[in-house]
Amino acid sequence: MSLIVKKFGGSSVANKERIFNVARIIVDDYKKGNEVITVVSAQGDTTDDLIEKAREINDGNISKREMDMLLTAGEQISVSLLAIAIEKLGCPVISLLGWQAGFNTDSNHGIARIKNINTERIRSELAKKNIVIVAGFQGINKYDDLTTLGRGGSDTSAVAIAAALHANRCQIYTDVDGVYTADPRKVKGAKKMSEITYDEMLELATLGAQVLNNRSVEMAKKYSVELEVLSSLENKEGTIVRENIEMEKMLIRGVTSDKNVTTISVIGLKDLPGIAFKLFNKLAQFKVNVDMILQSIGRDGTKDISFTVPRDQAQIAIESINSLKPIIKYESITSDDSVSKISVVGAGMESHPGVAAKMFESLYDADINIRMITTSEIRISVLIDESKTDKAVQVVHDAFLG
Amino acid sequence: MSLIVKKFGGSSVANKERIFNVARIIVDDYKKGNEVITVVSAQGDTTDDLIEKAREINDGNISKREMDMLLTAGEQISVSLLAIAIEKLGCPVISLLGWQAGFNTDSNHGIARIKNINTERIRSELAKKNIVIVAGFQGINKYDDLTTLGRGGSDTSAVAIAAALHANRCQIYTDVDGVYTADPRKVKGAKKMSEITYDEMLELATLGAQVLNNRSVEMAKKYSVELEVLSSLENKEGTIVRENIEMEKMLIRGVTSDKNVTTISVIGLKDLPGIAFKLFNKLAQFKVNVDMILQSIGRDGTKDISFTVPRDQAQIAIESINSLKPIIKYESITSDDSVSKISVVGAGMESHPGVAAKMFESLYDADINIRMITTSEIRISVLIDESKTDKAVQVVHDAFLG
Repeated sequence: MSLIVKKFGGSSVANKERIFNVARIIVDDYKKGNEVITVVSAQGDTTDDLIEKAREINDGNISKREMDMLLTAGEQISVSLLAIAIEKLGCPVISLLGWQAGFNTDSNHGIARIKNINTERIRSELAKKNIVIVAGFQGINKYDDLTTLGRGGSDTSAVAIAAALHANRCQIYTDVDGVYTADPRKVKGAKKMSEITYDEMLELATLGAQVLNNRSVEMAKKYSVELEVLSSLENKEGTIVRENIEMEKMLIRGVTSDKNVTTISVIGLKDLPGIAFKLFNKLAQFKVNVDMILQSIGRDGTKDISFTVPRDQAQIAIESINSLKPIIKYESITSDDSVSKISVVGAGMESHPGVAAKMFESLYDADINIRMITTSEIRISVLIDESKTDKAVQVVHDAFLG
Repeated sequence: MSLIVKKFGGSSVANKERIFNVARIIVDDYKKGNEVITVVSAQGDTTDDLIEKAREINDGNISKREMDMLLTAGEQISVSLLAIAIEKLGCPVISLLGWQAGFNTDSNHGIARIKNINTERIRSELAKKNIVIVAGFQGINKYDDLTTLGRGGSDTSAVAIAAALHANRCQIYTDVDGVYTADPRKVKGAKKMSEITYDEMLELATLGAQVLNNRSVEMAKKYSVELEVLSSLENKEGTIVRENIEMEKMLIRGVTSDKNVTTISVIGLKDLPGIAFKLFNKLAQFKVNVDMILQSIGRDGTKDISFTVPRDQAQIAIESINSLKPIIKYESITSDDSVSKISVVGAGMESHPGVAAKMFESLYDADINIRMITTSEIRISVLIDESKTDKAVQVVHDAFLG
């Protein structure tokens, strides 16, 4: 007998047919003698519809506490409907809201962090042989007010329960059937991986593979929860995410691209001590996420600093640097949207210094210019012309995984 | 400063415009320096829509516990939207679910009874000068499961809070502007009453005036909560419901009609001791609500018993009597749907024996035949042909209140 935690997103429970599809997956595992806990999100577009209702009433600042009160009704509807479907299939079942399932959070409404899970109720329902359906995304703070964990919070809910109950596995059902070495819709030869490490998954998530919510992978790593990413529509094995996986010949795990990048260049900075610190400190104050950084020595005691930010933060980045004008001297600021970031990810690459060279060579051969480079222990990223994104991913994928 | 409890039904918060209408009524009273608690139902058809969703998934027996889980999401949406609207109008506000507002109930899902209200949270929010919005119709049982009070439960929620907090008044907002001496859409000369007693209101509610939920009037009477029935659309005084009202010249308060009546006659019953007991005991077992009863002595040691039941219970009433066939002897059972009940209600009538005579005379003058009669201390009801319902109400109203 295993204890399995499953998680289904909103599209998986969007209508009656899909609800029964999910119900059958759950019932199958239950009938094999497993204990099954399932975390679900709000149905389809429910959360967006509720936000829209609130925005009609107040398009200004809405109290986050009231917003959480509103949005948590979404999962309340989906958990009860799923329980009703499982009941119809003849299995004992109970639905629990976040607070009933023991999700205690801090009071940061809209982006609450889980402090602990009181598992008493869930354990008692499992002991009664009930299938347990839990509302994802939500919890309760110390004042008995409802909180939400932020978008993608249902993944986090599932991993947190799996960790608290030492579940044998946490299965995240999605509309893809696993994690691929590259986007299979765009890259010829992209392969589904049977296993991947937490760190690799984190890099892939950050870089836009978007199969799993980052926070949930971090939590899974911290508590050694074995994850499986699999399809809610096809009955086949997905991709396992765990700490140690068997070494394979593959040096790299995947190739990803990210077009949500703008390069900002500060030209002709006076080359004085602390200039870079002041610049990036100011950007941090404005909560700008700086990614790649390139610094070049100019002439006449000046230098240029270029860095990348998500596109929707470019404006605020430029304004925050402008606000420094009285303190730091520079000639001009330029920005460029026509760039994208190509990354290779793989825990195997740290011991293989040839990875970077191989990546650069494949791009050179394809006549693609590299404008910036960053590396981490398990990732190499390069900035290129946006127009060459798809071609770049394909040639790099061919070089390592083709 | 007064403590006022207000209650608005689902149609009063059905859309953005109506939500703001309600928000302004609340804010007006709050700005006069009052403490205001408002109970609301789910928006418009939300409850029916949720039931429909569940029925699509399972048209058989649905666990009442899961149904309550589903339905309570309805008020969760309406309380938060109303709070967001009040916020927009610039007043401090907090929404509370039934359990957050301290509604502890028994475990009869779907028809739960309030056991007590823990008023700590509401008091603390009032102390912080917050307008408090409470989800009607819902509570929590001792297992921390959500419960509902049954249809019309929001009225009960409002009266229960008013009782628990010794509110100065409990205002029930409806789509009519008060309680009338007869249905003003049908009876010429129908007048709005400024005051009415609990008992009179109970009789009028039972008899189909349907302005207030019966259970809530009973609770208001028990805890001496002063009720006011008033319009959510027009800003004018409504009808006060309280224990003692000033004696007025009017002997009777109102005239009502009820078409939800079927007469069932058991013909040729053997006239043996205990026959009537066995008959009505069996009907009680089948939960049939028997109203008027007429017993007539027949010939040859037999008698006939006629009684009225709500129309949707006629079939089960007949079947339950048929099941007695081996025990009690009778010739036949007949039923008749073409009847209606006309009632006059008024606490003043007990000391005025002429009321019945005056009622009967007015019907006689209008050539309307009386088929059965029942009386209570504050009510006289007669059964007549259904086709003469409207005429009967008018002539009786003219006789007493015209």
